[in-house]
Amino acid sequence: MIRVIQCGLGAMGSLMARIALEKRDLRLVGAVARRAELHGADLGAYLKDPRARGRKIYPDIATAARRTRADLVMTATGSLLAEELPILEAAIDAGLDVVSIAEELAYPAARSPAAAARLDRLARRKRVTVLGTGINPGFVLDLLIIALTGVCRRVESIYAERVNDLSPYGGMVMQTQGIGLTPAAFAQGLKAGTVLGHIGFQQSVAMIADALGVELDEVREERAPIIAAKERRGEHVTVAPGMVAGCRHTAKGLHKGRVVIELVHPQQIQPEAEGTRTRDRIVIKGQPGIDLRVEPELAGGIGTAALAVNMVPLVAAAAPGLVSMKDLPVPRLAALRS
Amino acid sequence: MIRVIQCGLGAMGSLMARIALEKRDLRLVGAVARRAELHGADLGAYLKDPRARGRKIYPDIATAARRTRADLVMTATGSLLAEELPILEAAIDAGLDVVSIAEELAYPAARSPAAAARLDRLARRKRVTVLGTGINPGFVLDLLIIALTGVCRRVESIYAERVNDLSPYGGMVMQTQGIGLTPAAFAQGLKAGTVLGHIGFQQSVAMIADALGVELDEVREERAPIIAAKERRGEHVTVAPGMVAGCRHTAKGLHKGRVVIELVHPQQIQPEAEGTRTRDRIVIKGQPGIDLRVEPELAGGIGTAALAVNMVPLVAAAAPGLVSMKDLPVPRLAALRS
Repeated sequence: MIRVIQCGLGAMGSLMARIALEKRDLRLVGAVARRAELHGADLGAYLKDPRARGRKIYPDIATAARRTRADLVMTATGSLLAEELPILEAAIDAGLDVVSIAEELAYPAARSPAAAARLDRLARRKRVTVLGTGINPGFVLDLLIIALTGVCRRVESIYAERVNDLSPYGGMVMQTQGIGLTPAAFAQGLKAGTVLGHIGFQQSVAMIADALGVELDEVREERAPIIAAKERRGEHVTVAPGMVAGCRHTAKGLHKGRVVIELVHPQQIQPEAEGTRTRDRIVIKGQPGIDLRVEPELAGGIGTAALAVNMVPLVAAAAPGLVSMKDLPVPRLAALRS
Repeated sequence: MIRVIQCGLGAMGSLMARIALEKRDLRLVGAVARRAELHGADLGAYLKDPRARGRKIYPDIATAARRTRADLVMTATGSLLAEELPILEAAIDAGLDVVSIAEELAYPAARSPAAAARLDRLARRKRVTVLGTGINPGFVLDLLIIALTGVCRRVESIYAERVNDLSPYGGMVMQTQGIGLTPAAFAQGLKAGTVLGHIGFQQSVAMIADALGVELDEVREERAPIIAAKERRGEHVTVAPGMVAGCRHTAKGLHKGRVVIELVHPQQIQPEAEGTRTRDRIVIKGQPGIDLRVEPELAGGIGTAALAVNMVPLVAAAAPGLVSMKDLPVPRLAALRS
């Protein structure tokens, strides 16, 4: 039985906590939240789930770990490594394994090799395992591609795209994708860093390249506005024709001047309004060639939450250190309570 | 650098040896073959590949291991565990890691738990790792399914099919699938055990069920003839209308009386002659649902050979014991020589 704390009780963290309650081999023993009004509250009441009754919400990981004698913490507190580092260090220091959905932790060596090396050292010293995961980065545009190359004799190039629908998402996601902006404001947002596109391409490209032993010259990212030709409606925004309905973000990994990895992720609201079906697609040119489709795309929110919880038993059993999805056994549904 | 021996130099074994020669981190140091006329022969001459020149073909694994100081042996000598056991035991005894494409070794606990437990004990004692792999069993109808369930919160049922084309294969494959027979002779062949269908369903179903922590009541297999409506031509056989063009083999895993895993593998020659396109498909009913297609199907022969060689570095780095694909990090293209 693995004793688990959930750190971060927003939409994703709450979902992860609920999924953890369904697992045969996990015991959700508490949670951590920033909001002061939650400190000391009953987790079952907060989640509206009687199975979590009697477990508390704590103000910080050190306290939660001590009070609950937890083995592992699942974190859902942000996307960026810099934001996540204090939480990770507190968790490692408390002797907890970590499963995080912070996108940049999916493969931190990609952009922050020094921080990654330090995390790895700390984790080994405390004999805990630290993993970043999620549907993307963490599965669709990296792990699944890597697994497919396993049946290849040669790989000439990899092309993959993930077309999803952001319609259900809230204001923060609309903002980071520039949805609802004029094309000019989108361009300004890119410069100002308020329009971000997808977080995770650097991580996915580096994970693939490292798995395949390919040295890349560089990774080129491009973000272009998806201009609505027809009106599109999301839960939080309506986009008029001529305005920005999403961000088409691409990443290209070059080896000796040639594009060997190309990942495409147009994130938008209501793509089907203009005849675009959501899907994942992976095309590997090589021997043999591979053309894989998942239609509709592997679901984003629920997929990330489920994957994080499903990885808990594998992380608990793994050797200490900072690891990535390519280092662990394949994910699988962690057994449900019967 | 991992020093590798190839045991078995038929079509598959020779292909594995050639692929091993292309890998940066492997060194093919010799081979083993049954045919006496090959003993002592030059492997480079046999493979018609100068990169293997100066390496010898040996009569048995013990001799080969001693002369070459090998680390690992790749075997391609048969499908059945019983046939493979003496080879595996010799390899373990010689202190070699093993990667085998024998279908029943993909998950030997499925049908031979005692033999599997014994192999695991022997391997641990000698501190070597033993893996059975291949495109199927080993990847399409088990590992890929398992990996997809990793993004699920719940799985109600799994349906997967693999439609391939046996046209290029030789007489032995035609015979084991009953291709070219009358429907009556096919039925007799099933009873007599000369028509086998696919070898590996018991292994794939058990690997999936064990990965997901689902106890199965039973696994039901069915083999039905695919009757040609039009003439179909393979390399080694022409099938007239009304005769058997292939074997539609299915396996169903039942949990509490309900089919939770259904695998379908119609193996035939020239399916496109009657409008059937080759493909792999995986449908998971659950939360979220998943519908994945690979068209055409992941290539069989080259896929198995490539996967076996690609698994070598992962097996060499793994903990000792008898392992299966679900226990190791995801496969990936092993780095090529640059």
